[in-house]
Amino acid sequence: MRYRAVISYDGTSYVGWQRQLNGMSVQEKMEIALGKIFGATTSCTASGRTDAGVHAEGQVIHFDADTSIPTDKIPYAVNTELPDDISMLQCEETRDDFNARFSAKRKTYRYSLYSSPHRLATLNKNHTHIISPLNVEDMKKAVEHIVGEHDFKCFEASGSVVKSTVRTVFSLDIAVTKLPAIKGIAFDPIKLDITITGNGFLYNMVRIIAGTLVYVGMGKIAPDEVKDIILSKDRTKAGKTLPPEGLTLVSVEYED
Amino acid sequence: MRYRAVISYDGTSYVGWQRQLNGMSVQEKMEIALGKIFGATTSCTASGRTDAGVHAEGQVIHFDADTSIPTDKIPYAVNTELPDDISMLQCEETRDDFNARFSAKRKTYRYSLYSSPHRLATLNKNHTHIISPLNVEDMKKAVEHIVGEHDFKCFEASGSVVKSTVRTVFSLDIAVTKLPAIKGIAFDPIKLDITITGNGFLYNMVRIIAGTLVYVGMGKIAPDEVKDIILSKDRTKAGKTLPPEGLTLVSVEYED
Repeated sequence: MRYRAVISYDGTSYVGWQRQLNGMSVQEKMEIALGKIFGATTSCTASGRTDAGVHAEGQVIHFDADTSIPTDKIPYAVNTELPDDISMLQCEETRDDFNARFSAKRKTYRYSLYSSPHRLATLNKNHTHIISPLNVEDMKKAVEHIVGEHDFKCFEASGSVVKSTVRTVFSLDIAVTKLPAIKGIAFDPIKLDITITGNGFLYNMVRIIAGTLVYVGMGKIAPDEVKDIILSKDRTKAGKTLPPEGLTLVSVEYED
Repeated sequence: MRYRAVISYDGTSYVGWQRQLNGMSVQEKMEIALGKIFGATTSCTASGRTDAGVHAEGQVIHFDADTSIPTDKIPYAVNTELPDDISMLQCEETRDDFNARFSAKRKTYRYSLYSSPHRLATLNKNHTHIISPLNVEDMKKAVEHIVGEHDFKCFEASGSVVKSTVRTVFSLDIAVTKLPAIKGIAFDPIKLDITITGNGFLYNMVRIIAGTLVYVGMGKIAPDEVKDIILSKDRTKAGKTLPPEGLTLVSVEYED
């Protein structure tokens, strides 16, 4: 039987989703746990790799197993064999040709950051600290140029090799949370959650889009300039690649 | 000159605020940093101890220093000597008899938890996982019995020795955030932030109040029973002491 499962992980301690020789991956921990529950080697495939330090709230995997454990009890069983920073949230039976990677139709990522004169120790583990104030209205204007079907070559890590760099961004939302103001501080800290849904993402695309929007917020790039940057297909014109710890894979959607 | 500063820390890696022989404390890290900036031994006093694993967004400290660094630049200087999980947010000159501990008039704590059939790996570091669904309406009814001036002996860790166990809780708020629902999951996960402001707290009081409210949410304690538990002054009648990682010292207020 093929199973499809939703899993979550805090990527802080891992070399990323994919098995690697240089350290512990989320995949290896998951396959060890699946092996303990279902026996022998149970390999699993995710909707896509996540880089070292990147988190997931709703990564989707598939695996094959022959078991008498009722399907809705599988997460309880698997979670007993997983460390605290990885968990299975849901599991269901699926068709034999379901593939968590190739059947994926839409993915949603969130990039979380905060703008504050000083780092905020309690946010520092899963947010990126921006030391400048940010003009959020300008950032929201720039978003209009990103949503839609475009050749996003400018937002792809240099050196990547993919057939096509055309992708569709269905939505891009910036949610602002005011953080407690502190008397005498240079400017009031805010937290931003940039949530982006697309039919697929190029390597580092979300982190480069977040970095470009931050440059817009800092006034280094004008909101309408983002349109020209996309048309230029030139990575060097976009903003910096923000660090992995601010990035979370929120959910993956499939046709069925 | 005496200085008053607001600091934040992620308590995960520390034995608590106070210096101890068995491991690294936040106070020791702070005093090392202050020593590097202001020279020799610069000791500091906080509004109160926080236990191992407890976080702070707005702990207040005082220290004495003789320096030519402009006061508003002190956080920038001190932060260069602090690890990523501790930071100074603000610093101001204060009167010589200001004492971060004895001058404190009100403190606000937040206890964060989530209710979900399975643990959520991305929340697990600074929230407590409750495996049962919670009746939040009942929890909010119970709150009415806690707000006000009471003898809170029932919410004090057993073995504590303080002159009086009477304290005033000015406010107690429960904020609910719906977490993404997952198809087929036993019940929809929610996140709760319990924020409590008082003129002072007994040892473990916030963690025991949070544990008692969770028992109310689980139906183990009726909302109105909380009134009787307080009157009983009997620790064994209240709920469990919830773990430290869900607790954050949000702010400390002073007269001036």
